This record gives sequence, structure tokens and C-alpha cells, in this order.
Amino acid sequence: MFVKETVKGMRDVLPREMEVRDTLLTEMKRIYRSYGYNLIETPVMERIENMTNNSGGENEKLIFKVLKRGEKLAESDTGDPDSLVDSALRYDLTVPLARYFAGNAGKLPLPFKSLQIGSVFRADRPQKGRFRQFTQCDIDILGDKSPSAEIELILATSDFLDSAGISGRTVVISDRRILRAMAEKCGFDEADFSTVFIILDKFDKIGADGVKLELTDSGFPSASVESYIKLLGETAAASDKLSFLESELAGTIAADAIANLRYIIDSASDISGGNVNIRFDPTLVRGMSYYTGTIFEIVSDDFKGSSIAGGGRYDNMIGSFTGTPTPACGFSIGFERIIASIMEKANTSPSDTDKRCVLFSSKLVSDDILSLQKKCRVLRADGKTILVLQMNKNVDFQIKNLIAEGFQVITKVNGKEDILKL
Amino acid sequence: MFVKETVKGMRDVLPREMEVRDTLLTEMKRIYRSYGYNLIETPVMERIENMTNNSGGENEKLIFKVLKRGEKLAESDTGDPDSLVDSALRYDLTVPLARYFAGNAGKLPLPFKSLQIGSVFRADRPQKGRFRQFTQCDIDILGDKSPSAEIELILATSDFLDSAGISGRTVVISDRRILRAMAEKCGFDEADFSTVFIILDKFDKIGADGVKLELTDSGFPSASVESYIKLLGETAAASDKLSFLESELAGTIAADAIANLRYIIDSASDISGGNVNIRFDPTLVRGMSYYTGTIFEIVSDDFKGSSIAGGGRYDNMIGSFTGTPTPACGFSIGFERIIASIMEKANTSPSDTDKRCVLFSSKLVSDDILSLQKKCRVLRADGKTILVLQMNKNVDFQIKNLIAEGFQVITKVNGKEDILKL
Repeated sequence: MFVKETVKGMRDVLPREMEVRDTLLTEMKRIYRSYGYNLIETPVMERIENMTNNSGGENEKLIFKVLKRGEKLAESDTGDPDSLVDSALRYDLTVPLARYFAGNAGKLPLPFKSLQIGSVFRADRPQKGRFRQFTQCDIDILGDKSPSAEIELILATSDFLDSAGISGRTVVISDRRILRAMAEKCGFDEADFSTVFIILDKFDKIGADGVKLELTDSGFPSASVESYIKLLGETAAASDKLSFLESELAGTIAADAIANLRYIIDSASDISGGNVNIRFDPTLVRGMSYYTGTIFEIVSDDFKGSSIAGGGRYDNMIGSFTGTPTPACGFSIGFERIIASIMEKANTSPSDTDKRCVLFSSKLVSDDILSLQKKCRVLRADGKTILVLQMNKNVDFQIKNLIAEGFQVITKVNGKEDILKL
Repeated sequence: MFVKETVKGMRDVLPREMEVRDTLLTEMKRIYRSYGYNLIETPVMERIENMTNNSGGENEKLIFKVLKRGEKLAESDTGDPDSLVDSALRYDLTVPLARYFAGNAGKLPLPFKSLQIGSVFRADRPQKGRFRQFTQCDIDILGDKSPSAEIELILATSDFLDSAGISGRTVVISDRRILRAMAEKCGFDEADFSTVFIILDKFDKIGADGVKLELTDSGFPSASVESYIKLLGETAAASDKLSFLESELAGTIAADAIANLRYIIDSASDISGGNVNIRFDPTLVRGMSYYTGTIFEIVSDDFKGSSIAGGGRYDNMIGSFTGTPTPACGFSIGFERIIASIMEKANTSPSDTDKRCVLFSSKLVSDDILSLQKKCRVLRADGKTILVLQMNKNVDFQIKNLIAEGFQVITKVNGKEDILKL
């Protein structure tokens, strides 16, 4: 029995969206290449050990596991589903990047600047606009501990978003060390930091009062909660937030952490000639616990509700995988969100004046069809798109559909003279 | 435990090969688009029913199956591995194309011209140059029963191979109906055709004598074997093979089958201005049993041993899946073979005169680094690739590596004056 449906939660991409996707990816590759990034590719499957080592957080619950085959399957304990699998589909591109870097050390330049574009898979509950297979675009610099990495990632990613037509952008930036120092200063236990940060992460939505309420409800000491809300408020009110925190957190935070962040902010803004609008936000959290330093995301007036790109520095992760300490910093672009937004706006088909269709009459003799095809060959070599179709009986309906597909020039060919005019 | 190795039989693609792959795919998309083909994408997973309905022949034994999740897994009969899975990774792009066409009918133009590029998966025994995940590139025309489909597929694919620099090419062509009529004429039973064709397929390697021997060893009547070898010999010796078979097979074959093939051969050669070298070969078989009419492949002097592209007409397959009869014709390009050949030839790195590297001294003051980055930004906007790196202590070694990576211009920046000169 043949089924017409895709696997649950997955989808086919129709031609018009494919054009939009391909154009955006071509632009992405062009821009990051111009900064010297290397395009890389990893298999969609990884060994099960690498997919279930807790680096993926909640995503690990959503993995698609691949059954062993042949003898290995026959030898497994069928009562234990875990023993039946030896690999899984990747849920992100970070673990594959770490493995790629470790497995190909010596063949890669250092620092290694990587652009990886690929499908990832999560057996999430299907919902509008979220699919179980989707494209991720990750840009990472491995082996550069200096703030040059952050600055370049922010500049290159801003260049790409510019070229994608996404305006009204702000880069929101902070440092995990500031986040931690603020919590420490207010007396929270280090063991509770992740709980505190999950609540703080809602600041945008629930405000200071909401954060205070949730922290209190979670049973944290009221002295800590009060002091935390006060510190957040005073920081927000300060004319120079970083200088304020520099004095407030002195002794609690690494000496250069705030100077480092200030350098990144000033440099990105300066180098871009003001094109990069960048601001420090002490309530920025970024979900993944593996970040060790700078964290950032890009928001846009056109994309309410969540960021269109995000990332940060994760200096310990690669080393914990590979055994060789390797500083790392990266950005992940919300490719599917950007595509969805372009598709929503573009009600009309993409227009391409060089996209032509030639409809030839079924009465055309064989020699004339040959002449027509020869002529079209010349026009194609000249860079034009020429779709050649036989005219349908209902040619008006055919033409209407072709216009809907984005063909701007549609020519009927009934005889020799029409071919000459092409 | 983190493992540095890929899943068995799979591989990472290193940056230099990625450049070659991306360039070739960009060219492929450009050329087929110029003929009006639509780029499409389907999920890498398909429902298990569609992957195990015998249309995939031997490939079905090689599928990677994906474990059910959650309750559905808990409810399965653990003693029966088949009950544990609900989907699988695709082993080719043909089944997904049929499902795509059926599932999106009404949203697609007709005839539908498709270019699908994607990863496919086969749990083959790993061997040199063959991997368990690899890229397939399929070009298909659905809904056109006329020989225009074959002609255009041959022309467009020849254009692509031209642009890929693959010369010394011949399009070898035949028709499954000729293959069948020749076997029928010589008295083979229809039930034995597939066995006969598997032996005939070795003609290139074992010659007429070898084919005769294997047919005899397989127990076929000697009258049929003798007559078959005689017919093949006479056809090969005929100055006009198709005319010879037209009279030999009259009454055994559909009246227009040979005229149709002659029209395709003459038209492709004529329209291309002789650039397409095309020849009928009655020993051409093409493995898959789903072909119903024209079959073809492209061979090249640069690629001994097997074809670099192949395909044919399969008018019954889509209908048998979807219930709606739909003529279809397609080509599959041996993308991985072409890439392997380019990589073998290209011992030196790809040269790109606009690929520059700027090495700045660690003594550069902060303001100068900003000036440098601003200057590079201008150069990038101008289309140049500029990798900016801090100079290592062993700068000669660093430069040597950069040259190996394909950087043609490497500039040391020690101060303001060097930045001005960039």
C-alpha cells in the first residue's frame, strides 16, 4: 500500500519556497565565505553514544533512533529498546561539529571557521510552523579565544541579515559570567543558578514583578530575591550599565569580563559604521547551559516574540568531547523562521523577467519543433530560462497557471515566423 | 563517552571537497532551471510502507529503519523487529518523488519538471569510494508522454556535463520494448526476460560468446540462445541498426516504438548541433525493472567501467503508486562519481585570486585593528574573500599552510602604513 503522506510532522518543500530557500542559502554561503569561513558537511546520523551524553539537554528526549541491522540486530536483547539501536539522527549541528573537528584535526586550519548547513531532526509534538525535520545554519569559530571571534561573528551575521532584507535589528549581548556574578552577589547558591536563570529568561514577558513572584514561589530566600530585583533595576536605570556593574561586581567577576564585553560592543558598532545596533542586556540568558562567556542574539522589529539568530561562547564543550581544550564561539541562524516570514510576505510569485515560457502548437511540424528547440538553446546559453511546452486545448487556462508560477513572458508559437521573432 | 568517528560507512566532507561539490551543484541548478525545471525537496525519512513495497528491488534490503517512539514503541511486539519501526531513511529519490507528486497534486504544474538533490542511505557493505550516505541528483519529467521529454532530458543533461568539464561523452540509448521484442522473437518466455536481460547486461564485459555461454548454462533452449546471439550479431553488423530491427521485429513490437527512438536520436543530435553524440545499442539493459520505454545512459572516455548518468521512461510506476496514470521519464546523475573524479585530478588547491588572507601582528594597537577590520569590510563588499588572522609566532609555517588552503594573496600587517596599502 502506497501512502501519499509524508512521515508525521515532516513536509515536502514546494518549488516556490525552494527558490526562496536556495536564494537565501546562496547568499549566506557567499557572505560567510567572504570572511574566510569553510563550508562543511557531516552525516545526518551520529553514533548513539554521541547523541545521548546530556550535552543536548531536552533535545535528547526527542531523538529518532536507527535500528541495528542483520546479525547485530539478531544478537540484541529485544526486551530492551536501547540495545536495538546503534545510531540516531542528529538533533542539532553542534555535536556533529565537535566530532568533525576532533575527527579531522590536522586537516583543518586553526582557528577553524565553519559554516554548516544541514537538516536536523526532533520528534517534537507537531505544531504550526514547527516540523520534525528542519534546516539549521551554524557558524562557528573554533580555536580563537580572543574577542575578535565574537566581533566577526556579529559583523558577518549582520551582513547576512542585511542582504536577507531583515532590518530594524538589534544585537542583544551579555556574558554568562556577568549573569553568574549578579546571582552570586545576591546570595543565590551556585546549584540554583540554572533555576534562577530559567525564571530570569522570562523577564521580557513577565517583567521584574513576574520574575520576583516566580523566584519567591520557587522558595528562594526573600533577601536574595529582593537584592536581585534591586540590582537588575539599578542596572537598567544606570546611564552606563557596564560601568555600573563593573563597580558593583568588582571582586565577584573575572577582572577582564566586563572590559571584554565593552570592547566587543564598541568594536562591532565602530567597524560597521553604526550599521550594527548593539546593546547590553543583563536579563539575556540563552537556554543552553554550555555557554561560558559572551552570549548574544539578534532581534528584529519584523520578528516579534523570539530572536532570529543566537549564540555565544562555549569554551569547554569541544574540549570535554575531544580531550583537547579548544575555545569556541558560534551563531545559529533561525533559517526556518526567516523563510516562513519571506513566504508570508511574498503573496505574489517571485518575479523574474528572464523567466519565459514558449507554448508551441500541436500542429507544428517536426522540423519547426527542431528549429524552435535550437533557438531556445541559444537563448538559454544567453542566461535566460525558457520552459518549452506544448499548447493545451484550453490555452487561456494554461497561460493563467504559468503566470501564477512566475513566468513573465509567455509566447505562443504557431509557425516558423513566430520562431524567428523569439 | 564521546567518539570521534562517524557512523560506520559514513563520512565527513572536508572544506576543499565542499567547495567542489557546492560549485557543481550550483551549476546543476543553474542549467536545469534554464530549461524550466523546479527544485524540490522531500524529507529524508519515508513511511515504512513506501520503503518496503518492492519497487526498490535489492535496495530494500539495505534500508535503515527508524525506531518508533514513546507509547507506540511501548505497545509494539518486541519479539518482532518489524513492529518496532514506522519509518525509514530513503534509499533513493524515486519513491519520494512519486509520493511528492501524488501528495501535492494540484499545487504543481503539469507536465512537472523536477530537479531533486538529496542524501540517500543504503546500509551497503562499506568499500572504497562507496558510502552509506551519499548524494543523488534526479531530474524527471512527469506527465509528458511525448518524446520531447527524452530529448530535453538528454540535451539538458549534456549541457550540465559540458559545464562540468566532462568530455568524450556518448549517450547510449535503446528502448525496453526493443529489448523485449528481440527476446520474444527468439522464443524466450516472458517469465524469463529478466534473467535473460541480467545476462545480456554483461555484454560489454563478456562479449557475445560469454552471453551465449551463460544463457546456455542457465538452461535456456539452444534454439533460442542461437537465434538471440545471431540477431544481436546481425543488428550490430547492420549499417542502419534501427531499420534492420524495424523489419526484423515487425509484428512483434509496437508499430511506433522504433520510429520514436529514431526521432529522439535524430532530434537530440540535430538540436545540439552535433554536440550530443548519441548511439543506439541493442545490448543496453538498465537494471531497474520499472522502465517501460526508452532507456539511456551517458558514458565518457574519462569514466571507464560505468556510466555517469542514466535513466529512462517509466510510464507505469507513478500510476501504480498513486492510482492516476502518469507518464514519466528521468535521469539520475552519478554526482558522487563526478566529484570523486574531480577530487582525484585536482591535486593542487582550487585557486581563487580573490581569496586573500591578512595576518596582523599581535603588537597592533586596538585602534589599528579597528581600522584594519573597517578596510576589510570595504574589500569584502567589493566581492573579495578576506580572512583576517592574528600572526602566529611561526609565521612562515602559518603562511605555508594558508597557501596550501588556496590563499593566493597573503599580507602581513604590522602597522598603520600596511593597512593603508591593502
